[in-house]
Amino acid sequence: MRYELFYWPEIQGRGEFIRLALEEAGADYVDVARRRGGMDRMMALMNGGREAHPPFAPPFLKAGTLVIAQTANILLYLGARHRLAPTPEAGRLWAHQLQLTVADFLVEIHDTHHPIASSLYYEDQTKEAKRRSEIFCRSRPPKFLGYFDNVIARSRGPFLLGRRLSYPDLSLFQIVEGLRYAFPQMMKRLEKKIPRVVDVHDRVAERPRIAAYLASERRIPFNEMGIFRHYNELDG
Amino acid sequence: MRYELFYWPEIQGRGEFIRLALEEAGADYVDVARRRGGMDRMMALMNGGREAHPPFAPPFLKAGTLVIAQTANILLYLGARHRLAPTPEAGRLWAHQLQLTVADFLVEIHDTHHPIASSLYYEDQTKEAKRRSEIFCRSRPPKFLGYFDNVIARSRGPFLLGRRLSYPDLSLFQIVEGLRYAFPQMMKRLEKKIPRVVDVHDRVAERPRIAAYLASERRIPFNEMGIFRHYNELDG
Repeated sequence: MRYELFYWPEIQGRGEFIRLALEEAGADYVDVARRRGGMDRMMALMNGGREAHPPFAPPFLKAGTLVIAQTANILLYLGARHRLAPTPEAGRLWAHQLQLTVADFLVEIHDTHHPIASSLYYEDQTKEAKRRSEIFCRSRPPKFLGYFDNVIARSRGPFLLGRRLSYPDLSLFQIVEGLRYAFPQMMKRLEKKIPRVVDVHDRVAERPRIAAYLASERRIPFNEMGIFRHYNELDG
Repeated sequence: MRYELFYWPEIQGRGEFIRLALEEAGADYVDVARRRGGMDRMMALMNGGREAHPPFAPPFLKAGTLVIAQTANILLYLGARHRLAPTPEAGRLWAHQLQLTVADFLVEIHDTHHPIASSLYYEDQTKEAKRRSEIFCRSRPPKFLGYFDNVIARSRGPFLLGRRLSYPDLSLFQIVEGLRYAFPQMMKRLEKKIPRVVDVHDRVAERPRIAAYLASERRIPFNEMGIFRHYNELDG
């Protein structure tokens, strides 16, 4: 089956967490909105009157007749199909729980540059963004990444769930990549305190399919339209 | 099986979405942290070194040997066990997708009064809260609740998934209750545009087990420590 991924064509954003899973799985997929006419199809699927299960927002995945939205929900679906999560219920729920914690962290990361409203430009909320980012850098990455480091320690590693890679490891890789881009100074200080997280990052980066993907044009570079944005004045 | 729910004892918060599901299911459960010694047990489970799957934060549910955290993840688990979600995969994913969209909305609601940091008092971010709330009231409840209203229309109602109640309906009830408490003026204007959402709210409130729960002491009243807070100056 050829999957169809629908996401904004110019950013990594939330779509990237799905792309990484599809790439690691070696799945056949099309990144619809990056093709000619794709944006129109995406908007029609979201806003058209025909879809029984209309997505609230991208990303969403078309898998045969299924249309699945919400990043963590798509990964729950893909994880079960592509051996990117345990099969028994306890492991499946645990992987999903970690993914939802990644998702919570991601909202906080986004809101460092948009604390007032996503609909406003960054330049119209810079003062508030500075205030939010300063507190964020001091407290949130240490808390979230420290938590994931502890999870890896308890599983005895090298991955979040133990010996086998699962989809939250791919997402954790993306979080580290993104934070390095957005907050290089903060990360420079923090990384020595989260060696297991950095090790997961490195292992993911070296996996043959991920390495090939990262070197390809399918990987959109970080930029100041996405979730992870680099503004010098916010990097505390 | 007697479930053990772990959540902060003084607020509805995210725990309320779990309580509503447990109550509607007629499930046997203990609200651990509201009992003597319960807070210590909760903190030990979260921070102690023994738990294989440590939660990042409350709420979490102990179900036999399973410890499950993340509100939507707990509801995914309970939905399957208590006929609060469809059994086939497509329906199960769709219910979960709606729940995750409720969760996204909830973060935005929370951040109206805490746009800078959860660790600061409201009084230390009132100015930013006013700015965020003004834009929020104008744009976000119409968008989210309008979306859910459209979902009910497409399912032919009366509930989000059609004829049968599912756990996202219980959460949608709580969202309406909470917004009425926090933003009464905004909701007064909005409610006539989302009649199907209001109807779901009313149907949930009238279900015998939910009605009994709401009238009981198990239902913690809204207050200014929770997610839904009423501050006159934010109600636009």
